[in-house]
Amino acid sequence: MDEFLHDEPRVPRTDEEKTAIIHRLKRIEGQVRGIQGMVENDRYCMDILVQISAIHAALKKVGMTLTERHMKHCLKDAIDHGEGDIAIDELVEVLKYVSK
Amino acid sequence: MDEFLHDEPRVPRTDEEKTAIIHRLKRIEGQVRGIQGMVENDRYCMDILVQISAIHAALKKVGMTLTERHMKHCLKDAIDHGEGDIAIDELVEVLKYVSK
Amino acid sequence: MDEFLHDEPRVPRTDEEKTAIIHRLKRIEGQVRGIQGMVENDRYCMDILVQISAIHAALKKVGMTLTERHMKHCLKDAIDHGEGDIAIDELVEVLKYVSK
Amino acid sequence: MDEFLHDEPRVPRTDEEKTAIIHRLKRIEGQVRGIQGMVENDRYCMDILVQISAIHAALKKVGMTLTERHMKHCLKDAIDHGEGDIAIDELVEVLKYVSK
Repeated sequence: MDEFLHDEPRVPRTDEEKTAIIHRLKRIEGQVRGIQGMVENDRYCMDILVQISAIHAALKKVGMTLTERHMKHCLKDAIDHGEGDIAIDELVEVLKYVSK
Repeated sequence: MDEFLHDEPRVPRTDEEKTAIIHRLKRIEGQVRGIQGMVENDRYCMDILVQISAIHAALKKVGMTLTERHMKHCLKDAIDHGEGDIAIDELVEVLKYVSK
Repeated sequence: MDEFLHDEPRVPRTDEEKTAIIHRLKRIEGQVRGIQGMVENDRYCMDILVQISAIHAALKKVGMTLTERHMKHCLKDAIDHGEGDIAIDELVEVLKYVSK
Repeated sequence: MDEFLHDEPRVPRTDEEKTAIIHRLKRIEGQVRGIQGMVENDRYCMDILVQISAIHAALKKVGMTLTERHMKHCLKDAIDHGEGDIAIDELVEVLKYVSK
């Protein structure tokens, strides 16, 4: 899964969009560091599993935001320019891949 | 999900175990930073989704390692000391929670 | 999640599409009955878990086929008629719901 | 994943356990048939996706019940008989497989 139709979004991300996503990714980065500390400090296994599950949930939200944004801008733009079928094929391939 | 039977693993993690898990978490931290860069540099949405899915996979492996280790050491120790039922209840609760 | 934009697909399913999906659902129905037999006949727990996982995989494929078809026909049709945004909102809501 | 330590549960299922699980599997079977009807009667794609997600949830609960029961009886019995390590290995393999 490394050959896509584009290198960049068809409709560029605004600065606000970038800032919002990066902010959430920085929080996730902090959560991952937090787990390193929990392992280091011998925190109970079950406690760590629950925190890992919180990271999965936060990452999933970022993925969903990107998917939504892709559909509302890039996919819509592709359909408007008569390239909808190939863009939908691509999105479905990726959804299959990431939901494996 | 924040009241568990213990604060620490019943059988403490060895230094080797800690090092191995933290090493993997550091790699995951790097992957999360990598995605920040992809957002910043306007990389294509589909490309980012695939990378997010790689982080989910890596995190899942860490979770599975911790679960396995918990079962082989903490759960086994609990059963050996006649506290198996309550330890299994706890593990099942956590498995339900994290697989939601 | 029970109030949607439509009662029927915007672009009706062809008979071939219906037959293909129903065929797969009948196989899944058979797999579920198979597991009933395994429970009845005292088959090993681990064996049953693996079969349940096969049903999840088959169901997921049916869901993905419906999603793909929805995007290629209903969503595309909605976008063509200037109702793309609301149709994408709806799809994203459903994707969030089913990926919970 | 088709070679396990046992053909039957180490601790046989009671009739009550069998009845309870089969009852739930029959409901799931009914849900799968319900979806066939929805496809047949041209129900909206999004509606069907939500119903499929309900089946996943119900199946997951059955899987969790079997896992819990396996741990409380079979795994515990294995540990009591000095065969805990191999039984835990097996369970972890299956958990990895089904959570893929």
